[in-house]
This record gives sequence, C-alpha cells and structure tokens, in this order.
Amino acid sequence: MLFPPALRQLMQQLERLPGVGARSAQRLALYLIRRPEEEVMRLAESLMLARQNTRQCQRCFFLSESELCELCRDPSREADILCVVADPRDVVALERLEQYRGRYHVLHGLISPAEGVQPEDLKLRELMERIRSEHPREVILATPANVEGDATALYIARLLKPMGVRVTRIAYGMPVGGELDYADAATLGYALSGRQEL
Amino acid sequence: MLFPPALRQLMQQLERLPGVGARSAQRLALYLIRRPEEEVMRLAESLMLARQNTRQCQRCFFLSESELCELCRDPSREADILCVVADPRDVVALERLEQYRGRYHVLHGLISPAEGVQPEDLKLRELMERIRSEHPREVILATPANVEGDATALYIARLLKPMGVRVTRIAYGMPVGGELDYADAATLGYALSGRQEL
Repeated sequence: MLFPPALRQLMQQLERLPGVGARSAQRLALYLIRRPEEEVMRLAESLMLARQNTRQCQRCFFLSESELCELCRDPSREADILCVVADPRDVVALERLEQYRGRYHVLHGLISPAEGVQPEDLKLRELMERIRSEHPREVILATPANVEGDATALYIARLLKPMGVRVTRIAYGMPVGGELDYADAATLGYALSGRQEL
Repeated sequence: MLFPPALRQLMQQLERLPGVGARSAQRLALYLIRRPEEEVMRLAESLMLARQNTRQCQRCFFLSESELCELCRDPSREADILCVVADPRDVVALERLEQYRGRYHVLHGLISPAEGVQPEDLKLRELMERIRSEHPREVILATPANVEGDATALYIARLLKPMGVRVTRIAYGMPVGGELDYADAATLGYALSGRQEL
C-alpha cells in the first residue's frame, strides 16, 4: 500500500528534478496537495508560462521573452565590448555588480570531453559571426576557473586572435577578504600564476 | 536587469516551497525551461491532478482518490485494531513493514500548544466516533517519541480509557526525537511488537 496514484505520480516527477531526492519529493508533494487549489493552479500555470515564453535572445543568447533581450535592446550599452559567459546566471551575477556596461554572449555550456560537450554544442559559431558583424574592440572571457572553463577560454582565444580582436580573461585568484591559509590549492595556484608586476 | 518576467515569476513561486531556497529555485526554474515542453506540461498537469484528486479517506483520513482509501476498502484488514498516527507518511512507513494487518486513523497533526495546534484541530472527534461504532478491541498509539507525540498519546489515552477499549502505545524502540517516517524497518518492527499497556 502506497500513496494514491495521482499523488504518487507527482512524487515521481518531482523526484526527477535536479537536487530533489525521494524524501524531498514526497515532502513537496504532500505540502502541495494541502495548499489551496488556486495556489497550486498558479504554480502549474507559471511552469507552463515560463517554459512557453522564455527563449534565447537571438543576438547574445541570454534569456528573453522577445527576439532580443532587454540588454541587447538597451541602446545605452556599449556595443564594442563583449563579455563571454557559460550560463545565463553569470549574466545576472555580473549585472548585479553594476560596473560592466558592455554586452554579453552566453555560450550555454563549456567544452567538456568528459561530459561529451563539444565546441559545436556551444554558441561559438554565433560568437564568430557577431565579431565579424559587430567588430567589438574587446572580448572578455568570463568562464569559470576550472578544467572546462580554462579549456573553453583557450579554445575561444585561439579562434578569435586571428580575427584581430583583443581577447582578455577575467582575473582569478584569492577572493577579497579571503585568507591564504584557508584557500584551496587550486585557487592559490591561480593567484600565484596570475601575479602582476607592481 | 534580471531574468525575463515569466521565468522570474516561476523562480519566486518555487522559492516559496518548503526546503527550496533562492538558489535552488533559480536552478530548478532554469532546468525546467530547458526541458521539452511536453515534459513541463506533464509536470504541471501532475501538479493539478494530484491536488484535485487527492483527498482524505472519510473513515481513517489517510490519503485517497475515493471516499474510502485502499486500506479501508480492503476486507482482509483486521477491523478490530486501530493504529493512530500523526501523518499520512506514517501509514506508508508502517505498511512498508508488512507486519501490521489492522486499520489506521490519521490525526493530521499532534497537539502542540507552541504551534497553536489544539486537540480539536486533529481528527480526534472522528476517532471517538469510530471507536463507538467500530468497537475495536485495541487502539495502538503510534505518535512519535517527542513532547508533542507524548502529549497527544496521553491525551488520547485519557479520552479512550473510559470507553473500555484497550489502549497501547508503540515501544520506545524508536530513537527519541526521531520521526516514524525516518525509522528503519527493524526499529519500527521492535517498536510495534514491544507495545505496552497504558
């Protein structure tokens, strides 16, 4: 004897979501069937609306509800500087800074032979096309500091250098406020090898 | 600049679910908008179906899609023994044991002055009615071993004793502070077979 079928099916579907185990799926499902019907309806509607209305910007591949995202439609953004990131969340993180005023290009992944992600699975062809048509003076690579992020940045740098565009990569090293003593070896390694002349 | 509106709304709604923080809500929403539309549709449908079709059994208050739950409709279950639990999950936990062959009564909560849960908020009146009409020879109290579980068990024992029914409580084979739902089968089995007269 188990939970009734419709509830069980909900539990099974919730369990497939990333980071949701069997127990949290059960807890979530039991929570949801106790909520007012309108509230559950609203969540179901939000799910479908978000799925149906969210697409990728046709220029930078950030998320948008129209052909071009808010950023690409903003004429006050500098058009001659492009920041290349792996994921839409990275755009949001950089925008929170309120410091960068250029545009973005979202790769939607990183090169990873281990996970079977090839260069052609990323928005790289589109990046090349943009550089050819938009002629930015600088491309900032903001991929993370790990094997995949490094490989992707090197791959892109090799592609873009012959095109005559300036290619930079964001700095990696000790986080501000971090203590050397507590830093992991990888971070410390980046900090050391990325040292700057004073 | 943030995520587009429909996606943002989904994130906000997911964030309200128990155990889902801002970051997991974001991760879940971004995962969902990347899934095939049919899959997201199925999840939305499952949500609504589970909410609309799951109700409480009119006899034992376990969850069911019909007036009486699977257990109450099963004529092979012993009708003269009732196991009182706090939550539907506890029924599933006990059923996993495949040892108990009686019926259940789900209180849907425990007496908790701290959380403002009074005896009248639980299915206690319904329990009394069942005892009057079904005349079970024994009522097993399987509330957890904590302040609320103890208080609820004592409260029920005091209510039922004058009715001439044998009232037992599962043994403290259960780890103190542990919840039925989390117990392993062996512990739960000891608790069930070691029940004591109140």
